[in-house]
Amino acid sequence: MSLADPVLVEVVRGDAVECVHRGAAVVCDADGRVVFSLGDIDRSIYPRSAIKTLQALPLIESGAADRYGFGNKEVALACSSHGGEPRHVETSAGMLAKAGLDEAALECGAHWPSGAAATHALARSGGKPSALHNNCSGKHAGFLCLACAEDIDPKGYVGIGHRVQRFVAEAVGEVTGHRLDRDTAIGTDGCSIPTYAVPLAKLAHGFARLATGHGVGPERAKAFGRLRAACAAEPFMVAGSGRFCTDVMLLLGGRAFVKTGAEGVFCAALPEQGLGIALKCADGASRASEVMMAALIAKLLPMDEAEAAKFRRFVRPTMKNWNGITVGEIRPTFS
Amino acid sequence: MSLADPVLVEVVRGDAVECVHRGAAVVCDADGRVVFSLGDIDRSIYPRSAIKTLQALPLIESGAADRYGFGNKEVALACSSHGGEPRHVETSAGMLAKAGLDEAALECGAHWPSGAAATHALARSGGKPSALHNNCSGKHAGFLCLACAEDIDPKGYVGIGHRVQRFVAEAVGEVTGHRLDRDTAIGTDGCSIPTYAVPLAKLAHGFARLATGHGVGPERAKAFGRLRAACAAEPFMVAGSGRFCTDVMLLLGGRAFVKTGAEGVFCAALPEQGLGIALKCADGASRASEVMMAALIAKLLPMDEAEAAKFRRFVRPTMKNWNGITVGEIRPTFS
Repeated sequence: MSLADPVLVEVVRGDAVECVHRGAAVVCDADGRVVFSLGDIDRSIYPRSAIKTLQALPLIESGAADRYGFGNKEVALACSSHGGEPRHVETSAGMLAKAGLDEAALECGAHWPSGAAATHALARSGGKPSALHNNCSGKHAGFLCLACAEDIDPKGYVGIGHRVQRFVAEAVGEVTGHRLDRDTAIGTDGCSIPTYAVPLAKLAHGFARLATGHGVGPERAKAFGRLRAACAAEPFMVAGSGRFCTDVMLLLGGRAFVKTGAEGVFCAALPEQGLGIALKCADGASRASEVMMAALIAKLLPMDEAEAAKFRRFVRPTMKNWNGITVGEIRPTFS
Repeated sequence: MSLADPVLVEVVRGDAVECVHRGAAVVCDADGRVVFSLGDIDRSIYPRSAIKTLQALPLIESGAADRYGFGNKEVALACSSHGGEPRHVETSAGMLAKAGLDEAALECGAHWPSGAAATHALARSGGKPSALHNNCSGKHAGFLCLACAEDIDPKGYVGIGHRVQRFVAEAVGEVTGHRLDRDTAIGTDGCSIPTYAVPLAKLAHGFARLATGHGVGPERAKAFGRLRAACAAEPFMVAGSGRFCTDVMLLLGGRAFVKTGAEGVFCAALPEQGLGIALKCADGASRASEVMMAALIAKLLPMDEAEAAKFRRFVRPTMKNWNGITVGEIRPTFS
């Protein structure tokens, strides 16, 4: 991190560039070949919530999702960083109920919905946030269902030594080709589970595998397909109203699976191109990681004129002030 | 902005540095001598809300603040980016009432309070945000009072050609020594007034003048003293509950005037040292501009052990997750 990453995004206000965002980004195919890169792509980063789809593999592969009758809605929510909107909260609660549990079993902590409208509505109703409103509650409900289906005591399921987290780390290590070793940096995520550092290029390789099912066994390839299909069918469940991940997948359907992570991480799988993308904004800003991801998708995914016009708001979002006046824009420095 | 600023702040999670923040910072004395600097300090930046104290000069110097009987509370609020808490909203409304106006005269736009607790309370009461909740409403109330006292039609007071904005630009130009010219970049601020780019070192020089009253006439020196005294007496009015500006001034009293601005700007005046500080986090992150400012204050302001211990939470803030577990810290790279 001590070398200067290239500037990948500029924030323009009036006559001047007001801020810059540096970062690194890499596109890989399913053989791990680097197709395109910017900055230092061998560095390890914490993938945070960008890999929730990979973390959901044990839920699918163990048969737990089938046992509890999970459809697209539940599977997509297990991969989500949701806005705490009513449908998210109800679906999390429903997943837990299938395993005979309720929100008391969640170990992610409570916070106000990340969606502003959901926060205002909750406060207006006199309510308080619970662990179900935590943006990770779908992932945690998936962890708990995995534990119950496998007859593992769910208590302490967020702990690094718990069997649920060992299953998850194993799956992530296999898909990215980066098994945990003594050099792997480990941190604690916002929702209390461990996050393991992975080299950026290996992360992109893992997402190319998610995109294609190549380089993994048939069971895993099937699980990848199910995870992608669920998110394509229920993009609202992956994030929420007005959110980048949801809106991009609403527009592009199954042609792009995209998932954000805290601190400027973004990953994507492009099935038709057989490519995976991983990027990190060095300063952790979501506004910049979103523009980086949008610019890469615009570069890699063929779009007709009408689609490209609709997609432009993700690549060069306009900034408006409190009076709705356009004051600037956020734009990529590469194309 | 194309040259790489140095990394001034690191965000650490577990075993690794997860994010870095670059920037530039400069400390000047009242003669404009650079006492300390990091990065490119000759670049021009939009100072945004960090110069509200300078923008409030015409309100004081015109006699408008006296005419309407403004005390420390109102003067501090005119310099504020407040959290939209009840005392802020009431004080803004009271300032307007003194000039025979109400919130309908405000041209800053409405937004939910920036303070989360204030937002929850407002929603819980069934209320909606008005322009009084806008973090700039105190500054705008000051603009409106200036117009009324000077018998200027307040309508359109946010416009670049309006006399109120010309008074403000004149004062800022005099204090920083950077008069508007054809090379000055201009943008529109969140609250719709113009923001003029100023070289970082000149901004620090202006704040050294604010700190000392040196290099300006006696009337302006008196106005500087009144503005500093008001903010030292009413630090809550400058920002709000749990906010960096308020908490630092609560701890240090009149020994440090600090004011944040959007997009990673921070300015400060240290009267006892006769110094001004201006800094810009290149990516616009407040978490980093706060740590940069705290590290500079810790470097420049003599503190006894007890005070330094209390101040440490600003220099190296701990990051906790939703379960209250410590997951990392934000720390300066310089001391």
